[in-house]
Amino acid sequence: MKKTVFQDRLSILRQGLTSGSPDTLWIVQPENRRYLSGFKASDTQLNESSGSLLINKKRAILITDSRYTIEAQEQARDFEIITLKKDLDTELCRLLGQIKTRVLGFEGDHLTWEQHRRFSKQIKKLKSPVRMTPMDGSIGRMREVKDREELKSMKAAADIMSAVLDEVLHGLRPGRTEIEVAREIEELARDAGAEGMAFPPIVASGPNAALPHATPSQRRIGPRDPIIFDIGARLNGYCSDMTRTVFLEPPVPMFKKIYGIVRRAQLAALEYVRPGEKSTKADSIARDIIRQAGFGDYFGHSLGHSVGLATHETPRLSPKNPVTLEEGMVVTVEPGIYIPGKGGVRLEEMVVIERHGPRILTENDNYYDF
Amino acid sequence: MKKTVFQDRLSILRQGLTSGSPDTLWIVQPENRRYLSGFKASDTQLNESSGSLLINKKRAILITDSRYTIEAQEQARDFEIITLKKDLDTELCRLLGQIKTRVLGFEGDHLTWEQHRRFSKQIKKLKSPVRMTPMDGSIGRMREVKDREELKSMKAAADIMSAVLDEVLHGLRPGRTEIEVAREIEELARDAGAEGMAFPPIVASGPNAALPHATPSQRRIGPRDPIIFDIGARLNGYCSDMTRTVFLEPPVPMFKKIYGIVRRAQLAALEYVRPGEKSTKADSIARDIIRQAGFGDYFGHSLGHSVGLATHETPRLSPKNPVTLEEGMVVTVEPGIYIPGKGGVRLEEMVVIERHGPRILTENDNYYDF
Repeated sequence: MKKTVFQDRLSILRQGLTSGSPDTLWIVQPENRRYLSGFKASDTQLNESSGSLLINKKRAILITDSRYTIEAQEQARDFEIITLKKDLDTELCRLLGQIKTRVLGFEGDHLTWEQHRRFSKQIKKLKSPVRMTPMDGSIGRMREVKDREELKSMKAAADIMSAVLDEVLHGLRPGRTEIEVAREIEELARDAGAEGMAFPPIVASGPNAALPHATPSQRRIGPRDPIIFDIGARLNGYCSDMTRTVFLEPPVPMFKKIYGIVRRAQLAALEYVRPGEKSTKADSIARDIIRQAGFGDYFGHSLGHSVGLATHETPRLSPKNPVTLEEGMVVTVEPGIYIPGKGGVRLEEMVVIERHGPRILTENDNYYDF
Repeated sequence: MKKTVFQDRLSILRQGLTSGSPDTLWIVQPENRRYLSGFKASDTQLNESSGSLLINKKRAILITDSRYTIEAQEQARDFEIITLKKDLDTELCRLLGQIKTRVLGFEGDHLTWEQHRRFSKQIKKLKSPVRMTPMDGSIGRMREVKDREELKSMKAAADIMSAVLDEVLHGLRPGRTEIEVAREIEELARDAGAEGMAFPPIVASGPNAALPHATPSQRRIGPRDPIIFDIGARLNGYCSDMTRTVFLEPPVPMFKKIYGIVRRAQLAALEYVRPGEKSTKADSIARDIIRQAGFGDYFGHSLGHSVGLATHETPRLSPKNPVTLEEGMVVTVEPGIYIPGKGGVRLEEMVVIERHGPRILTENDNYYDF
């Protein structure tokens, strides 16, 4: 019988469970949990979890509570489902004893300080001692390179948003508010089959376009405003992410100029988004172009990030933490220039890195030749 | 000049900054941050922060990055806004030195293990030593009792959802899918002025009503299905939360019976939601009624929780952690009975605790006299 994708992922993960390292992994982070088990539940709040995985060489257990038992059984078919009778700490301790864990790997970048403190106190009471150690990020690294099915979902999520943007722009006239347009985007995306948004849509016009993370407001869009659309859909859990800057009528010369610089920076950076390049290279290429054009102080954020089950994943395209780009990674390339009080321009493509270079997933014609 | 609500909250918080305890607080948790400063930005992902507060007896500082500077300046007017030049850890260290911090309080239930590890390593390099200690939850406790403005927002958010439910039920016929109805709820709520949903609306029909945290599906609603609506809007940052169970045609006798039990449990529990009562009392009253009716195994979750800037806040109405209820707290009372494979009934009111008892904020007529 063909192995499921989750069995394959478990096999890879288990190769890391060698002596000297954790023999059991405790996984709580929702995207890691879904990636390894197929369990789709999200966590409604930081301090609330819909489930934990416990994985060692032999067992793969999903511990959840009665609210989620039925979904868990349907979705995580390669896992034993255990429904909590008492609190999670008590149940985890019982299981750790049963499966003879000695070193438990945990997600240091997800577990809170308090959860860690409470649980390490609890395991001290166990008969045979268990030591806790932070995991090495191998699940995050497994998630970096996407397989064919993942890419299919991401391409479909991107296509939904390309079509939505076309439709929105077709009907867009000055005078509508940012909130109205943002709502239209959400509704069209859901009509087109999106599970939801990857993140709340950004529609930022005029001076609001100077805020890289603007929230849509009651501001009415003006005819010559720069309008930044930063939008993404979610499909099968996977995200898309795309930005276009649009003008309803030809903008003032300054924005034509800025637009041209950002677009040049983007196209130049895309040349360095290929297997074997460092993740810092594309960022520095784009940053140099913007700096040489005199706008270095107006591009504060990183060039891009990876995308997958989460909108923001590693590796990032930034001046820090160089890693080597690989085939199958999906990253964004999104330079921007933001002039406080006036507006801004950001252009973002989401691309999959293929053997010979980037393939754009957010393909559509909404660009200008300024 | 009249003090702002944020100045009042800072005064109260600063009373706790006595010798022997932290002299400076580092606040990252988005709702705490908004409660104390007015800064509205949310954090898009667990591992991404739009800002940190640093509060001591004299200074109130909001550290953010260039994406949020302008919003921060407009929204957090009682705070000094500092835009990050380097990474947060470096900037925090510089400031801690400048304001002569000796003991830094942090949010142990929000900061991740890794953030804490990295930052405690970093502060070891400071000239005068800084010790890190978890905060005692006083901000969470300040947030428990709502003032008049907060209650006004919560009542308005609840009213939106009462009106939305009326309108949805008016037009609801068998054959529509749960997803369609959930989308209608979102759209009507936004039309009515909601900023967004407090949480994704639950519309769970037939067997799906047996899943307390069901996700709306493509299932078509049947005429005699129990349909659970668990819905909440957000207004000025504040949440509402309400559940009704609805039948389009008279249900089979079992569901009439279950409905009657749940409603009785709810009404009885509401009698114990008053100042001076323990938070465990209402839960045990409801639980006893459901148990005595023979459905004790089918009510797995707690009776309720507090609501505010977050949908789930402390105190909870549960069998654990008894605390004394106070005037001004806003809690839900939501017993349920869930029969796997068949369906379920949950009824939820959100109430503010007043001197003489609970005042229902989620008032509307969508109840049956079974």
